Order: sequence, then structure tokens, then C-alpha cells
Amino acid sequence: MKVKSSFGPNYKSFEIGEIVFLAQEEPLQLACGAEIQNFPLAYQTYGTLNADKSNAILICHALTGDQYVASTNPITQKEGWWNFLIGPEKTIDTNKFFVICSNIIGGCMGSFGPKEIDPKSGEPYGIKFPFITVQDMVQAQNLLIEYFGIKKLHAVIGGSTGGMQALSWSALYPEKINLMMLLATSYRHGAQNIAFHEAGRQAIMADPNWCGGKYLLEKKYPTKGLSVARMIAHITYLSESSLQKKFGRNLQNKDTSGNNLGNNFSFSFDPEFQVESYLHHQGAGFVERFDPNSYLYVTKAVNYFDLETDFGGKLSNAFIEFSKNKAGKICLVSFSDDWLFPPHETKKLAQAAIACGINVSLVTIESTAGHDSFLIESDALKNTASGFINQ
Amino acid sequence: MKVKSSFGPNYKSFEIGEIVFLAQEEPLQLACGAEIQNFPLAYQTYGTLNADKSNAILICHALTGDQYVASTNPITQKEGWWNFLIGPEKTIDTNKFFVICSNIIGGCMGSFGPKEIDPKSGEPYGIKFPFITVQDMVQAQNLLIEYFGIKKLHAVIGGSTGGMQALSWSALYPEKINLMMLLATSYRHGAQNIAFHEAGRQAIMADPNWCGGKYLLEKKYPTKGLSVARMIAHITYLSESSLQKKFGRNLQNKDTSGNNLGNNFSFSFDPEFQVESYLHHQGAGFVERFDPNSYLYVTKAVNYFDLETDFGGKLSNAFIEFSKNKAGKICLVSFSDDWLFPPHETKKLAQAAIACGINVSLVTIESTAGHDSFLIESDALKNTASGFINQ
Repeated sequence: MKVKSSFGPNYKSFEIGEIVFLAQEEPLQLACGAEIQNFPLAYQTYGTLNADKSNAILICHALTGDQYVASTNPITQKEGWWNFLIGPEKTIDTNKFFVICSNIIGGCMGSFGPKEIDPKSGEPYGIKFPFITVQDMVQAQNLLIEYFGIKKLHAVIGGSTGGMQALSWSALYPEKINLMMLLATSYRHGAQNIAFHEAGRQAIMADPNWCGGKYLLEKKYPTKGLSVARMIAHITYLSESSLQKKFGRNLQNKDTSGNNLGNNFSFSFDPEFQVESYLHHQGAGFVERFDPNSYLYVTKAVNYFDLETDFGGKLSNAFIEFSKNKAGKICLVSFSDDWLFPPHETKKLAQAAIACGINVSLVTIESTAGHDSFLIESDALKNTASGFINQ
Repeated sequence: MKVKSSFGPNYKSFEIGEIVFLAQEEPLQLACGAEIQNFPLAYQTYGTLNADKSNAILICHALTGDQYVASTNPITQKEGWWNFLIGPEKTIDTNKFFVICSNIIGGCMGSFGPKEIDPKSGEPYGIKFPFITVQDMVQAQNLLIEYFGIKKLHAVIGGSTGGMQALSWSALYPEKINLMMLLATSYRHGAQNIAFHEAGRQAIMADPNWCGGKYLLEKKYPTKGLSVARMIAHITYLSESSLQKKFGRNLQNKDTSGNNLGNNFSFSFDPEFQVESYLHHQGAGFVERFDPNSYLYVTKAVNYFDLETDFGGKLSNAFIEFSKNKAGKICLVSFSDDWLFPPHETKKLAQAAIACGINVSLVTIESTAGHDSFLIESDALKNTASGFINQ
């Protein structure tokens, strides 16, 4: 079915592509204790599922990503975030594969999330929404895979938080996947990452227009708080060297009144360095496309993620079941200047999987765009994906 | 003279130690174009100035530091921030040296800053306060040194933004100093540092209690915004590894209602990881001791700092005049896990000074506390300071 949804501080309306209400017999048990049933999952598919349903690839999107992996996002009108990788005759060829990408639960692109209407109250859930974990997201994705009647996925692929979802797939449903490709991800969120997200959450909740989470009811929007939260996060998505190379200490040529400033400081609190203006732009764009409460929930989900502790403090335990699938292989990709999920954490994942006898490919790509490198077209990334997925 | 000042969201009153009104004949020309005259500078001294006034050491404090370098801060009641280094029979022995530390202009501990009363309007300056640069801070300090009748300082010492002030001393008044000791500092603020401060400023200005900078008049206080700004900055003061070692993914034992949580998530937006609680504590403490507008001004000042560009893009030019003082020596100290001002930037400073024939000591101390290491007692730091200052 197709539905409409509204969004952003101006409450623009747009059409969500495909939504299924997952009306499973048994309710889904969330880690927080809540149970959910008959909840919506928004997804996009590309290509055609073959007769024996053996050509499906599940793409898990990142923290604030969406299901529009290879088609135009209806809000931003930007092309799919992995358009360079996925499509007819591309690296992941949709003439050959059936690619599925669903919006995570807790998200805000049509799937079960805090801006959706609680049927009990007739109001948006807001912060009455249950807390979500990465594993919960994967349980919901599994219901979608069952809905398609797929017994085994050719591959699960994910970057960043998407990589954590893929890791959770191998832990929760090891018998259902052959290939796992994980990019720019980690086995757990460390203290610094938790700290940055907490600062972002506090920025949102400090905004009086957040209204204790009831801004949709109050017809307000915590635009400033969400923008600050995005600024903080965005700095972590790029590396120090990439920011320095891209912006350095370059000044805006003009002040906000259009006066030419040349190389002189404007001595004002308006953005005067280009990097400041860039951050403002990132904040403003984010506010138009992402729900503030959803940001609270998805950042908590990623903060909760700790595969090592889930498996008794021994990371290799997480791979024991997956190692029993003799067709199972893992490709791990890290990026040299990613300081959010640095290469040494990816190595630890590789060691844990290899310790279980799994066939592991570990690739560290020399990058200049920090964590976001997994979203940027490069031959290294395309060649790695091509070799692994098309083997 | 001694004056009283009030502070923080609860407007607590406290006594500033020593304040001089610098009533120089010619007004001080600020980089932004404003001129200031007869403005207050709050300072503390330790030890006694000797007869020939040759035993003075100027300490330049960091961004949100203060003049209480070796005595109790009247607001926080904490001991001096370099108490382990400065005092009778300590590394910098105040039985031997006359140590001066003044609050920077633009700051909020009694010196000319945005919370002080503008005599023209009878109201706090707020954001009518002129923009300040690091060089302006140093010009004001120079007036204080003249007030004491000191022709030459034995040493200027500063960490972080204090190091930038010391660098500016060598550029502006090269004939007035013999020894320069710079810690955890850089020749300029890079794009990432500017970005983090811009996010912090936006957090403050997003708070409706900021009131366009007029919160003192309105009897309000942007407590939440300033707290978020401090959280962001505080993450940059510690290293990823230090946060991980100190807090890791440890949970609070209790929720805010005092319920014992054990090892379970609380599934709430209250702080549940210890690192979150620590950040909240840092934010709350900062709000009690620092003026929000002052934070806007001092972060701008440090963002403006770029010694290399000031000297025509050739950093060594900054040291030419200082190199003519044959007694002039520089000691540069960096800390291995400082990612705010990393060791490679300190090396660049050393190369530039050495290129001018200056006697340079370069020390990289293995640290585990990130940028804040210069504020933490260690034998390495004390021994380095002792050898250099007492030579």
C-alpha cells in the first residue's frame, strides 16, 4: 500500500513509497519489554525476486538514512544514497539481484516510529514510543523478509548503524544469510560516541519547542535544537583533515546582508568561516527531513549496541552460529580516516569472525572523507563490493 | 581595589580578588576597530616582585580559565588550577618568582567582558560588547605589566588558549620576555575546532533564555544552552581512549529516582551511561561559573587566532623579532593524545622558531587525559617546567 506522511517544521506532505503492516501472529517482543504487533514498515525494492527467491539482498541503512537507497528521496529530491552502487548494470546489479531496503523502526520515513499515530490515543507516540534497539530493528526486517517468503538472503549489507544491523542479522538469524558486507561500523558504541549523541539529545530536549516531546500536538518544532544536534554529529562524520582540506580557515565572501567581506573578519556571530556556514546548511537540511523524537530514539538504539557484552564479553561468540553456514562469508570494510568507527575496531571484528573459522575479507580503504566515506563513490568501494557480492 | 561581582543562573555574589582599572593615556585599539580605555582587569599575584623587577612570570589562562592559578577560586571553591605547579617551594617557586595571572578581556571573572556594566547605558554590555582577539587580550595584559613597572618578564607561560596568548606576546612584545613556555597549543585554530565552537555558540543562542544576549537585563539565563555548549567542548578536552578507559560503557547504578538498575538499561532519556552523567555534571558546573555571552566572545577570539596568516603565511616570520633577544628561549610541550591541538601542530611551531635560530625545547609527554593533560599533575610536566623556568 502507499500512504502519505507529513514532515519537518513546515509539515510538508509527501508520499511514502511502499508500506506493509506486519501483522504477525505473535507480537514482536522488544528488548525494552514492550510488545508490538501490526506495525508499519516502509520499504523500497529494486529488481525482481527470482522464482526460487535466492537473489535477495537486504540493505540496512545508517542512523538517519532511509529506504531510498537507489531511488529519489521524496522529501529531499536527492538521488538514492547508494545510487552509485545499486541499480541496473551497476556494481550491485538490479537486473540480477532483488534489493530490499526498509526504514528502521524508530525511524521517521514511514516505519513504526515516534511521529506515527498511536491508535490507542489517536495522537503521535512522541516519547511514549517504546525504546528500540538495533536488534529490534533487525527483528522487524526479518518479518519483512518472511513477508516476501525469502528463506535465505544472498547478502546483507550495511554501513555504520547499518553495519550494526547486519551484525545483528548474523547473530539473530545466522541461517538466513550467506554473505555479510559491513562498512564503517563497529561491534559496539564507545564512550566518546555515546557522549556526542548525549550532547545532541540534550540540544533537542533543551529546545522549548520540543514541548516534552509533544511538538506535533502543539504545532511547534524544535528546529534549533535538532539543528545543533546535527551539527555536532556532522563534525564526527568527517575527519579533521577532510574539514581542513575542504574549508580550512576560509571565510565567507559575504555577510548575511550581502556585503562583500574580502579577507576580513566580519566580527559578528553570523557564520563567517565557511565551515560554520557549511554546518548551518547541514543543520537546516536535516531539520527538513528528520523527526526530532526519532533522532532521540535512533541515537539511543545505537548507544545501546554492544555485541561483545551481548555475547558474554567474548566477541567471537557472536559468530559461532553463523560459522556453521558453510556458504557464509564476511567482508569488512573500514576507512582510514574514520574516527567514529576506526579501522582498529573493524580489525577486532575480523579477528573474532576468523576465530570461528569464517571466511573473512578485511579491506581498509584509504579515505579522505572520514566516516562518511562509505557513502561516497570510489573505485575501491565499488571493486570491493563487486568482487564480494558477485562471487 | 577589590570589588564584588555576581554570577550564574542564581546570580550568586562573590568578591573578585584584585582589579585594576587600566587608565592608559591612549585608548587601546582592538582588532575589531573599537577603542577601549579605563577598563577593568582582574588579576592575582603570588610572591613578591624583587627590587629590579626581574623575577616576574606571567601565566596566561586557557579559554574558560581564570586568574586563580594558585589560589582558591571564590565561586567554585576549587584550589588554583595550577596549584600543583605554582606556590612556595613548588616547581615555580613563589618564594623566588613573582607570578601574575590576569583574567582575559572578554572573560567573566572581573575583567572587561560582556557581563560588565557599560557606563554609557548603565546596562551589561551583552552582545554590544566589542569582539576580542587573542592579541587584544595580550595588549591588555601588557598594560598590566606596565602598571607593575616591569620592563622584562622572566617568562610567559600558557596552555591551550593561554599558549596562543604567549605566542602573541612573542610576536607583539618580543623585547619584553626571555622565556616562553607553551603547552597544548597551536599556531592557529583549524576547521574542526571552529566547527565544534560554532555548534556550542549555536546551542547558547538557540536557548530562548539567551534573550538575544540580554538575559541579565531580563533576569533569565540560558542554562540549558550553555550546558550543551560545555558538553560539546568537554568531549574535545578528553581523548577517545581516556573516555573509554574512564567510563567505557559503564551504566549508572541508579536511575534519577534512586532505583537500583544493576546492569540493565533504564530505557529512558535520563543519563544512564556514566559518561552521560559525567557530561551533565560538567555542563551543570560550568553554568555556575561562566557567563554565556563571555563564552560566545572567547570562543570567537580563539577561532580568529591564526599566527601564520598574520605573518604573511610564513609561520617563522612570527619569531623573527623574538629571535633577536639572545636570552630568548622557547619550551614547547604537547601531549600525545591531545586531539584538539595535536603534537604535529606543536612540531610545526618548533620548526618555525628553530628556523629563526631560537633555542627551542620540544617535549611530547605521553598522556592519557587528552588536551586537559596540561592541567593534570605529572612528573613529566613538573620536571619540564622546573628545568626550563629555573635554568
